[in-house]
Amino acid sequence: MKHFLDLADFSREELLSLLELARRLEKQPEPRALAGKILGLLFFNPSLRTLASFQAAMARLGGNSFVINPGHGSWVLETRRGAVMDGAAAEHVREAIPALASYCDALGIRVFAEGRDLASDLAETAFNAMAELTEKPLINLESALNHPCQALADWKTMDDLAVPRAGRFVLSWAWHPRALPLAVPAAAVHMAALRGMEVIVLRPEGFALPEPVMERARRAAAHSGGTLRETSDRDEALAGADILYVKEWGATACYGDTAADAKLRSTLAGWCVRNDWFARTKAECRVMHCLPVRRNTAIADEVLDGARSVVQREAANRLTVQTAVLHQLLKS
Amino acid sequence: MKHFLDLADFSREELLSLLELARRLEKQPEPRALAGKILGLLFFNPSLRTLASFQAAMARLGGNSFVINPGHGSWVLETRRGAVMDGAAAEHVREAIPALASYCDALGIRVFAEGRDLASDLAETAFNAMAELTEKPLINLESALNHPCQALADWKTMDDLAVPRAGRFVLSWAWHPRALPLAVPAAAVHMAALRGMEVIVLRPEGFALPEPVMERARRAAAHSGGTLRETSDRDEALAGADILYVKEWGATACYGDTAADAKLRSTLAGWCVRNDWFARTKAECRVMHCLPVRRNTAIADEVLDGARSVVQREAANRLTVQTAVLHQLLKS
Amino acid sequence: MKHFLDLADFSREELLSLLELARRLEKQPEPRALAGKILGLLFFNPSLRTLASFQAAMARLGGNSFVINPGHGSWVLETRRGAVMDGAAAEHVREAIPALASYCDALGIRVFAEGRDLASDLAETAFNAMAELTEKPLINLESALNHPCQALADWKTMDDLAVPRAGRFVLSWAWHPRALPLAVPAAAVHMAALRGMEVIVLRPEGFALPEPVMERARRAAAHSGGTLRETSDRDEALAGADILYVKEWGATACYGDTAADAKLRSTLAGWCVRNDWFARTKAECRVMHCLPVRRNTAIADEVLDGARSVVQREAANRLTVQTAVLHQLLKS
Repeated sequence: MKHFLDLADFSREELLSLLELARRLEKQPEPRALAGKILGLLFFNPSLRTLASFQAAMARLGGNSFVINPGHGSWVLETRRGAVMDGAAAEHVREAIPALASYCDALGIRVFAEGRDLASDLAETAFNAMAELTEKPLINLESALNHPCQALADWKTMDDLAVPRAGRFVLSWAWHPRALPLAVPAAAVHMAALRGMEVIVLRPEGFALPEPVMERARRAAAHSGGTLRETSDRDEALAGADILYVKEWGATACYGDTAADAKLRSTLAGWCVRNDWFARTKAECRVMHCLPVRRNTAIADEVLDGARSVVQREAANRLTVQTAVLHQLLKS
Repeated sequence: MKHFLDLADFSREELLSLLELARRLEKQPEPRALAGKILGLLFFNPSLRTLASFQAAMARLGGNSFVINPGHGSWVLETRRGAVMDGAAAEHVREAIPALASYCDALGIRVFAEGRDLASDLAETAFNAMAELTEKPLINLESALNHPCQALADWKTMDDLAVPRAGRFVLSWAWHPRALPLAVPAAAVHMAALRGMEVIVLRPEGFALPEPVMERARRAAAHSGGTLRETSDRDEALAGADILYVKEWGATACYGDTAADAKLRSTLAGWCVRNDWFARTKAECRVMHCLPVRRNTAIADEVLDGARSVVQREAANRLTVQTAVLHQLLKS
Repeated sequence: MKHFLDLADFSREELLSLLELARRLEKQPEPRALAGKILGLLFFNPSLRTLASFQAAMARLGGNSFVINPGHGSWVLETRRGAVMDGAAAEHVREAIPALASYCDALGIRVFAEGRDLASDLAETAFNAMAELTEKPLINLESALNHPCQALADWKTMDDLAVPRAGRFVLSWAWHPRALPLAVPAAAVHMAALRGMEVIVLRPEGFALPEPVMERARRAAAHSGGTLRETSDRDEALAGADILYVKEWGATACYGDTAADAKLRSTLAGWCVRNDWFARTKAECRVMHCLPVRRNTAIADEVLDGARSVVQREAANRLTVQTAVLHQLLKS
């Protein structure tokens, strides 16, 4: 494995083998596997799980890490090619990335969507502007439209819980005070399709996932024997569901238009997941969420504190799958 | 030892044994005792000594650590139960604490008093809302009304300096531009009482320590052969003192009322410790302070730069006692 | 080696030997040389390379480090002697430095020039106020008028590239939206003079380096067989140059006067290094810059992305020379 940027870069078999390695390292830790190795972590956006679990994963394998937060103790960084830098940014990623890469054995980068131009975000403009600047093993810590570490942790979580491969996986939109990026919904539907599930995207009008995201998941489904469709009919979508995967995201019908997005979501506060959402699901239907989640706006306390919620297992699996990823990338 | 939350959770003998371990590890370091172990450090408030010394202590024992600062590179966290999260907080501690705990072998948490409602702060509402969320060994890095790491370091400092067990320990209020929490004064009087000292709380009218804090220290004194009283008479309090322990805190007569507190303290700028405070103390009377301290408002340069000041030894002892705490919590 | 504060503290031979050690450790790493050792890093100002490369250097040698950023998760620190601390600073360096020093085996400090009073900055008032407070090995991570780690990395970079010892080294001023400190230009001319080069300072009127900086470099040149002069004639300076070392700095003719500085630089936007600057240099003339650099204001894309630029090698050499410095300071 040279990089870990996108689950789509790997065959289904390679991913199953990575999940197998994660399970093996849970049982048989290798505390010196990465002795002397260094992971650089570059965060353009806030983090809790990714920040802590990557440092922990390196430590569990005997390695080290450092963290850079542009604008917080480190220089504000410019990502645009050709910029005349007379503004806030003191440094360009064209200098910063090679420098950081020279200090470490692998580099992780988090850069969220700008949320202004959908085509630019779909093209992963900011992430790719950095990825091309180093030959070192690179890890996507969440980019505009992807979050492969979360997706792999979610896959393992469903395996841990023996969720049927062909089970019904409902990705549901939920309410949030403002537009959030599409990275997790895009990664989640792709992962579930790749796992071979019956994937349904449940979202209000105006919040359909972009066609390239759907098309990509459709191809994964075709390859793995899964299916993919979308709806705004909650009752129909949730009937017989094995998994309700909840996520907040911005209106795609007016991407980048904050006022239009706010107006669209102003009537949707009812999209807060409560116990009554599970009237028609399978009895054992689980609730998943990548976290962070806002309680009682996206998901009610009664659900998060109930037996259906497996969000803690998802969070814990971030460490286990990332340990496997680092082992594959860096073990000599 | 399962947790390190409060000196009151331990018998006097257990604490003496912990101090003995601290001294032993000073002389005979164990550089691999915690190899492979990880300490998570969660800071809701600023830190210098705690932040540096816990990382150093883990490193001295061969372990690792990671640091999370909500709101600074990590999500703003909500602590209140049942909150409808449509404000600044992106995540609730009910998700964040179990996630962080799953990445480490022990977790340290710092969360200062809110300073609005005394009953809520006395009940350690915020800290306890987090403590109940994990089974992992937990360390109090300073909560609303406690700072056990500081208290233990102060105890060791007095032992190092051969301060008599039954010596006179005067906790004196000092001036500060605004109200500060009660954690250190509460922990200091309890510790000194537990050590068996003659404890006197010297404070202006309006700044009496809350009765539950006094009662708790009184019980510790009764158990250890010490005594506890309070006064606003500086000359009387300091006569024959072995230790002058200086600390700034907010008015308890108008807790949470910023304007009333400011008015009360506006006439108290004379409570800045100067050399003339030591006219009637024992000749060798020492000055202690947990730090950070504001020079020439709480304590004058002439005192901090003089021979009486042992604040550096207190700071250095943070590392030594915390090394012992971590050894007890995490050594297999 | 007791401290690493200034290249002027060492003989030319000692520096050559340090560079030799850096080359040896590149080829033959010593992954356990500093096992159990701790480096404290105190940053009053932003950093990317220094922050990452010092942590990486300690990790490469088997040691550990911690980072403190006053005002960002840690207390705002006062550096002035005798201050009555009723403002933003919660702690004085007279307490903070000894405390941090007691937690580590060596301490690195970054504190930029205040930029108000040239005499005070030339006297390294802030850095020296801290340096005198500890006996622990101390590293200058960039002070008001010095940056020895950068200077040593630059020296090694020229050695790596076989730049002739007696080659022409042109330090050129470049445009920046506001006044920047003199640390790097001062360190660069001193280093190049010490290496024995023909050093020319090329700068607009009003931006001459302070006489003490020039005098110090002149002495180094005299000792090493180099020369030093200054000019504002670009064509003359660059004729036959081996190295164009680019740096932005504030007007010294009106040091600390922001408005006068802004007026002076308002006509100097042409001081952006472009390919046409190399018409009369040696064919193989290299461009150096300490980074961070603003693209298309100080140096154009065409230069930074071209073959002349060795800024990445300079950045990478930060790690290699600092590994040698730490090895010398801390290896038992």
